[in-house]
Order: sequence, then structure tokens, then C-alpha cells
Amino acid sequence: MFPNDKVKSLIGSKVQIEMKGEKFTLEGTLEIVDDYLNLHLINTTEIVDGERTRALGSVLVRGNNIILVNPVNE
Amino acid sequence: MFPNDKVKSLIGSKVQIEMKGEKFTLEGTLEIVDDYLNLHLINTTEIVDGERTRALGSVLVRGNNIILVNPVNE
Amino acid sequence: MFPNDKVKSLIGSKVQIEMKGEKFTLEGTLEIVDDYLNLHLINTTEIVDGERTRALGSVLVRGNNIILVNPVNE
Amino acid sequence: MFPNDKVKSLIGSKVQIEMKGEKFTLEGTLEIVDDYLNLHLINTTEIVDGERTRALGSVLVRGNNIILVNPVNE
Amino acid sequence: MFPNDKVKSLIGSKVQIEMKGEKFTLEGTLEIVDDYLNLHLINTTEIVDGERTRALGSVLVRGNNIILVNPVNE
Amino acid sequence: MFPNDKVKSLIGSKVQIEMKGEKFTLEGTLEIVDDYLNLHLINTTEIVDGERTRALGSVLVRGNNIILVNPVNE
Repeated sequence: MFPNDKVKSLIGSKVQIEMKGEKFTLEGTLEIVDDYLNLHLINTTEIVDGERTRALGSVLVRGNNIILVNPVNE
Repeated sequence: MFPNDKVKSLIGSKVQIEMKGEKFTLEGTLEIVDDYLNLHLINTTEIVDGERTRALGSVLVRGNNIILVNPVNE
Repeated sequence: MFPNDKVKSLIGSKVQIEMKGEKFTLEGTLEIVDDYLNLHLINTTEIVDGERTRALGSVLVRGNNIILVNPVNE
Repeated sequence: MFPNDKVKSLIGSKVQIEMKGEKFTLEGTLEIVDDYLNLHLINTTEIVDGERTRALGSVLVRGNNIILVNPVNE
Repeated sequence: MFPNDKVKSLIGSKVQIEMKGEKFTLEGTLEIVDDYLNLHLINTTEIVDGERTRALGSVLVRGNNIILVNPVNE
Repeated sequence: MFPNDKVKSLIGSKVQIEMKGEKFTLEGTLEIVDDYLNLHLINTTEIVDGERTRALGSVLVRGNNIILVNPVNE
């Protein structure tokens, strides 16, 4: 499965997304993703240094600023 | 709805935009957005560390430097 | 008006451009802009932490490294 | 062999990936890679300052944020 | 003149190039430039905090990591 | 010669590559390079603050994260 198809297979699941810049993580349910890895998360929480710092709800994430996508095993 | 269509559905609403680099947030009303997530905000305020630091009015934002778009529930 | 058309409508006007990296601002008159937001500013001044630090004259700016474009009301 | 073909030749092998931002390394087995260097790693470990800091399992990595790919000789 | 044509008009002249990342400047003679602002400088000197820190000779610069191009008036 | 052709003319020669992020340099023999400046180096050494810090052997480098390519005169 190609990397982007692998991400698409995670739709409906909980994922962690590590973002560029001052490193932080978003955890949420993957609602949809396009070919550029732009994605829509719902029930999103921001995690900084391992602590849940903010409830963000619904967020749109720009694909080119994603470092990695990590499925969360529940 | 694809991620970019989701952003387009926010036109006319208040949004928060987190930007790359030294992290800061823009809050404003989404006037228009294109396919690259370039967007035009009006009545924009800059927020740094949770404080409203500057009124910026009308700003054009380069899509590739956006980390995430977060709808503001009013 | 699309975001890039909005920027084109500012040709001949004074604008402030916030750049990526160690954050700084360029203020100058917008001479021309292309579809990638590459732009040519004249009479440009560099502003760091609110202070005018250097007169740069004519500068060419790479669009992908622009955070935002802010019209200056004179 | 072109650079991307060289990376494809590493599928099934252990690789180290250095990422942009606050520099860190991912070590894992290369499952698949596409033309943009987006890649899927399995059995992935995060390495910061030479220490194995986290077991990440299966991760999807955005190609444009990769600094370099280094085959691990076992 | 479009921004990239303006840069092409500087071929054979001395230019300063400000680069992304830890900010530094390259000064050299512009030998050639392509449509992505990739450029070849000769007789290049690195400038950090206003001081000439290294003679680099011939360098190839990746366009997407250029912040701005500034003609040097001699 | 266009900038990318200039880099191709360096195949088989020793080059230094300055990378984005926390600035560091790679020195190695240029094995191959593609149109995006993705490149394959062999006998690669990492240089940080002028000191040779690690022997990396064969590495694949993502073109968009290259700041500059500098031929090494031997």
C-alpha cells in the first residue's frame, strides 16, 4: 500500500500528527485526507511535551507541515 | 467533504489560523480561500501566547505556511 | 476577489510583508507580484521588533517564504 | 541509479531518517516509499541526541520534511 | 517586469541573497538563475551578523530557501 | 549553464552540502542528482561547527531542504 493510501486506510481511526515548527502533536479522529496529506481531524487535542494542553475540536491541517502520522492503538 | 472544501465552508465565519515559524495565531473572518489554502482574512487580530497583540485588519496569508485552521465557535 | 488577486490590487501601494524564519517585516511599495506571490518591492525598509533596522531599496522576495501581506493604510 | 530509485532499493531494509525542525532521527524498516519520498516505516524508534526515546511502531512520514535517508548496515 | 525577470536582469551583477534557517547572507556575482530562483553565484562570500565569515567561491543555491534577493549598488 | 546543470557537472567530485534546520554540512562524493536537487552522496561525513562529527557513508538527501551546494577544490 502506498504511503498516502496507508493514511487513507486510517480514516475513522484515532491518529497522532506531529507538526513542524516548535514541535507539538495533534491527536484526533481522522475525518478525511487528500492527496497532499491535508487532513481534517475531529475531537482534536493538542499535546505539548506529553501533556494535553488544549481541546481544539475540529481542525484542518496543512499537509506540507506534517512531520509524521502515527496511528493510535486503542 | 475534502479538507479544502471544509475550509471553504468556513467563508464568512470567524477562524483561527496557526502559522509556521515562531508560533503565533491569527483570528479573523475568512473572506476567501483558494486551492492552495492562500486566504484573505478581515478584522484580523494577532494572538501570541494567548494575548491579543496587534489589530492587523485585512491580511493575505500564504497557504504553505499555515499549520492549521480552527473554526471559532461563537 | 481571490487571495492572489487581492494582492495584485495592492500594486503601487505600500505593504508590509512578514517573512518566515527569524521573524522580520519588510515595508515597501509593491512594484509587481506573480502567481506564486514572488514580489518586487521598492523603497524597502526592514523592520525588526518594531524598529526600522535597514534601508534595503529594491528587493525581490520569494513567495513561499512569505507568512502574510498586510496593506499599510496611509 | 537516480536518488529516489536508490531509496526504493532500500525497501525491506532498516533505515535512519533525519527530520527537519528540532532535529531528530527515526529508525525503522522501510515498508514503502513514493516519488515524493513520502514513506511508511514499521518497527520505528525515535532517536534524539543518540538515545532511543520512543517506540513509534508504524509511522507515515511526509517526504518534504525529510533531511536525509541513511541505510543502516546490520 | 515580473519578479523573476527582474532577478534575471541582475545576471553579471553583484547581489546579496538572504537565506532561510539561521539567517545569513551570501554576496556574490549572479552567474545564472532559473525559473525556481535556483541560482549560481561566483566569488561568493558568506556574511553573518554583518561580518564576512567565509569565502565560498562558486555556490549553487536552492531557490525555495531564499528569503530575498537584493542588488548591491557599487 | 543552468544551476541544476552546474550541479550535474559535479557528479564524481567532492561537494559540501549545507542543509536547512539546525545548520550542518555534509561532505561527500556526488554520485547522482535529479532535477529537484535530490542527491545521492557516498563516503559522506557530517560537519557541525567546522568539526567532522560523524561518518555517514551513503546518504540520500532531499533537494528542497538543501540551502546550497559548494564544490570542494582538492
